[in-house]
Amino acid sequence: MERQPIVTLTTDFGSKDPFVGIMKGVILNINPSVTIIDITHNISPQNINEAALAVETGFSYFPHKTIHVVVIDPGVGSARRPLLVAADYHYFIGPDNGVFSRIYQKSESLDVFHITADHYFLSNSSATFHGRDIFAPVAAWLSKGIHIDRFGEPVTDYIKIPLREPVLSYPDRIEGEVIHIDHFGNATVNIDGRMIEHLASAKKDGGIRVLVKGKEAPIKTFYSEAEDNRLCSLINSFGYLELFVNKGSAVADFGLNIGDKVELSSG
Amino acid sequence: MERQPIVTLTTDFGSKDPFVGIMKGVILNINPSVTIIDITHNISPQNINEAALAVETGFSYFPHKTIHVVVIDPGVGSARRPLLVAADYHYFIGPDNGVFSRIYQKSESLDVFHITADHYFLSNSSATFHGRDIFAPVAAWLSKGIHIDRFGEPVTDYIKIPLREPVLSYPDRIEGEVIHIDHFGNATVNIDGRMIEHLASAKKDGGIRVLVKGKEAPIKTFYSEAEDNRLCSLINSFGYLELFVNKGSAVADFGLNIGDKVELSSG
Amino acid sequence: MERQPIVTLTTDFGSKDPFVGIMKGVILNINPSVTIIDITHNISPQNINEAALAVETGFSYFPHKTIHVVVIDPGVGSARRPLLVAADYHYFIGPDNGVFSRIYQKSESLDVFHITADHYFLSNSSATFHGRDIFAPVAAWLSKGIHIDRFGEPVTDYIKIPLREPVLSYPDRIEGEVIHIDHFGNATVNIDGRMIEHLASAKKDGGIRVLVKGKEAPIKTFYSEAEDNRLCSLINSFGYLELFVNKGSAVADFGLNIGDKVELSSG
Repeated sequence: MERQPIVTLTTDFGSKDPFVGIMKGVILNINPSVTIIDITHNISPQNINEAALAVETGFSYFPHKTIHVVVIDPGVGSARRPLLVAADYHYFIGPDNGVFSRIYQKSESLDVFHITADHYFLSNSSATFHGRDIFAPVAAWLSKGIHIDRFGEPVTDYIKIPLREPVLSYPDRIEGEVIHIDHFGNATVNIDGRMIEHLASAKKDGGIRVLVKGKEAPIKTFYSEAEDNRLCSLINSFGYLELFVNKGSAVADFGLNIGDKVELSSG
Repeated sequence: MERQPIVTLTTDFGSKDPFVGIMKGVILNINPSVTIIDITHNISPQNINEAALAVETGFSYFPHKTIHVVVIDPGVGSARRPLLVAADYHYFIGPDNGVFSRIYQKSESLDVFHITADHYFLSNSSATFHGRDIFAPVAAWLSKGIHIDRFGEPVTDYIKIPLREPVLSYPDRIEGEVIHIDHFGNATVNIDGRMIEHLASAKKDGGIRVLVKGKEAPIKTFYSEAEDNRLCSLINSFGYLELFVNKGSAVADFGLNIGDKVELSSG
Repeated sequence: MERQPIVTLTTDFGSKDPFVGIMKGVILNINPSVTIIDITHNISPQNINEAALAVETGFSYFPHKTIHVVVIDPGVGSARRPLLVAADYHYFIGPDNGVFSRIYQKSESLDVFHITADHYFLSNSSATFHGRDIFAPVAAWLSKGIHIDRFGEPVTDYIKIPLREPVLSYPDRIEGEVIHIDHFGNATVNIDGRMIEHLASAKKDGGIRVLVKGKEAPIKTFYSEAEDNRLCSLINSFGYLELFVNKGSAVADFGLNIGDKVELSSG
């Protein structure tokens, strides 16, 4: 038996308008045998960086051949191109505005197509809702088995947004920054566990200090291991350094924000 | 192969209580082979006008025979009737309080039934949660193929709420008003593209001015075509005039609100 | 034909991060033939009492054999155990922190297992996201027909949190308290309809007075039966006493809160 195809949706449409439901109706109209999964519809309006991170964080937990539709699209209606990306056995559909930059950077296999085959679009496409008129129907047709090269031409000049990378400021020091704040007020830092291990292994004593806004945030293994109300850190479940407060909120209690510098040093 | 039936849900139940999940449990208990799609559960509490617009906006993107359940129900438990509406190859289930007024007005075919066949209800129906006890089970039984005339008797005296219609104040002038504010702070006006075309065609020069709160909102084709931070307008993807601010919010930046008058004039 | 298995999800993960979508990806990767239903993801962060009530309120409306995954998990990564509970023809999966206390108390049949069979977990389980690494995959394997006793050993020393019970202060008086505030600002009280009937039947005249914060809240049958803007009460659709304001909010208009005392007296 064929596995039912999966389409995931990531947008900044929020939850009060019928926009997301409409996209699902369009998909089911073309392919009634598809499972549609919401990733989030609460990306901050038009925040391409935030969406790029959500896409990278989530996609690999889905089965191969899952189709990930991402509609954060401030340039809708302009000359910006609709894209279909095949990377690491997954598909991605959305606007050419950099929202797939983290996929471009990290995937081992990558094919990017400019979607031009407008017979797969809704007829009378609007200039303001390509999620409904282009991205949803293309996802539905792809899920029915239409081959990717039928949707358009390969391109290599797709837009990449600069990703914030940590800086090795000294042999024993890494400077990173906060790149995400989650629902619990935890702050994700763009320094991953392997960098920290590397830093730790360079020194015999192996001690690592995490500094943010002049405060030390000792490294723990899990949340409830930390003293209540103290800023601490751990390697989170996606492999990144995370600042947290047990029974509190790193953001609310310590005023952390996207872009805040975080310094790691050994010894 | 039969297409799996679809039930959509539109409510004012919000997302913190288990109410929506419970309705889905009731439906799946009766018909496990149904696809349930959320339209929105964030209609403002008991706002029948807002729900009526969401239903009209979304339903036609779904396949024929989709069942749209709408629970905005301030009169639950009183003598207000539960209704089953068949219109333009779609079904609508909800309370008789005007929430289907836009469907009544715009559909080409229309049959309205007062739901009375209480053997299709949950046993021991409550007086406060007909979404669970009446509307969800009736939707599930309908999705299993029970014929609509088995649920009750045809009625013609269903409740219609007055819809705000634009006024042709002069041959070259239309006065409408804001009827919806979306997640992005865009304001939908009850003037559609055909009215504007008609106004434009009446004048040789074809120029149209959009005025709101004494400000002109020039007409654009898509969002990013507009100057940042300027109030502009366009015909949106549902065919209505919409006021917007590129990289901003028409509502937050210019204090727009439901009911604000918008004047169009030509020449 | 076998009925498609159902997994429900109740968490405090909110709606802005991809956490819930990731759990669904993990489940579908193991069992693509499962229907996943959201109960709520807006339990207040780490509020075990609130989650316990949501689980009790909702589960029984689902078909038998439904698997209810509950992730409110402040102790994730510590020694707290993951549990699999079989009760009244339903399954419950979540942390051993008391979140299933209402199920333990009210179910007629009950088997509780400490989940130890880590070959059913995601490989390289993290210390901070057991929803993804343990609870989701165990739910998926259970939905594929793996027998419950394969997941671990029976335990009887699972954690129960004290549930607020009403007090019979005099033969003609019950003192309860507000245990839940819903989306509409209605306040659920931990006094059920049977207690009220019992109180009413004890007295010949049958009159019952509901007092909260020195105000009387007369008992109605449904919402719109009450005078606007007046604090009233009714037996709600789950069988509990509920304080409400017609066309208003008991919480916003009368400052009600979780824990507020409510007194019922007869005669």
